[in-house]
Amino acid sequence: MVIKKVNQVLKTKIDDEKTKSVTRQILIGEDDGSDNIIMRLFTLGPKGYSPLHTHDFEHLVKVEKGRGIAVLEKGEQEITEGDLVYVKPNELHQFRNDSDEEFQFICVIPNKK
Amino acid sequence: MVIKKVNQVLKTKIDDEKTKSVTRQILIGEDDGSDNIIMRLFTLGPKGYSPLHTHDFEHLVKVEKGRGIAVLEKGEQEITEGDLVYVKPNELHQFRNDSDEEFQFICVIPNKK
Repeated sequence: MVIKKVNQVLKTKIDDEKTKSVTRQILIGEDDGSDNIIMRLFTLGPKGYSPLHTHDFEHLVKVEKGRGIAVLEKGEQEITEGDLVYVKPNELHQFRNDSDEEFQFICVIPNKK
Repeated sequence: MVIKKVNQVLKTKIDDEKTKSVTRQILIGEDDGSDNIIMRLFTLGPKGYSPLHTHDFEHLVKVEKGRGIAVLEKGEQEITEGDLVYVKPNELHQFRNDSDEEFQFICVIPNKK
């Protein structure tokens, strides 16, 4: 068993052409012995966004803090603390923070070794 | 994409010889189209506990609220909001709430179809 604290987990900042003000933390993953599933935490700063993209694996998302926008193929929907999002494999998606506060969500994925 | 709220998800109460004051919610699972991974939320009432047991799959746990005890093969450790626990397959474990407040954690597992 591994026990640790979220605020001790390494933060990786991502800021590029398709991504703005995103901080990623691998909360539980291969380094902990978890070979099948990875639990990540994403923190989007004010006006931040993840890439609008698709991939062949799913996302299991739970909003932990703040208020953001889930961008879908057919439009946009606001999501707030306590909301859950399931993104299917190969489904276009993006998460965006239009607010002035941090927007934070857990995103669980299968490990694609 | 499926979007829904935690408080709209069915609550199943579990109270038997090995389990006390446990409420389980399947936040994201097969009914949402998630075939590989299941995200559950457990709420342990005051003095509640999950069974002391082992099984052949892992747990990825994030404490969402309150204060509990992780029971391990080699002893016990207190865990609080923001703590992460990885339980390996076949590892003996239990979660217990010695407090007078609710203790709540996410527990992600692989789907054992």
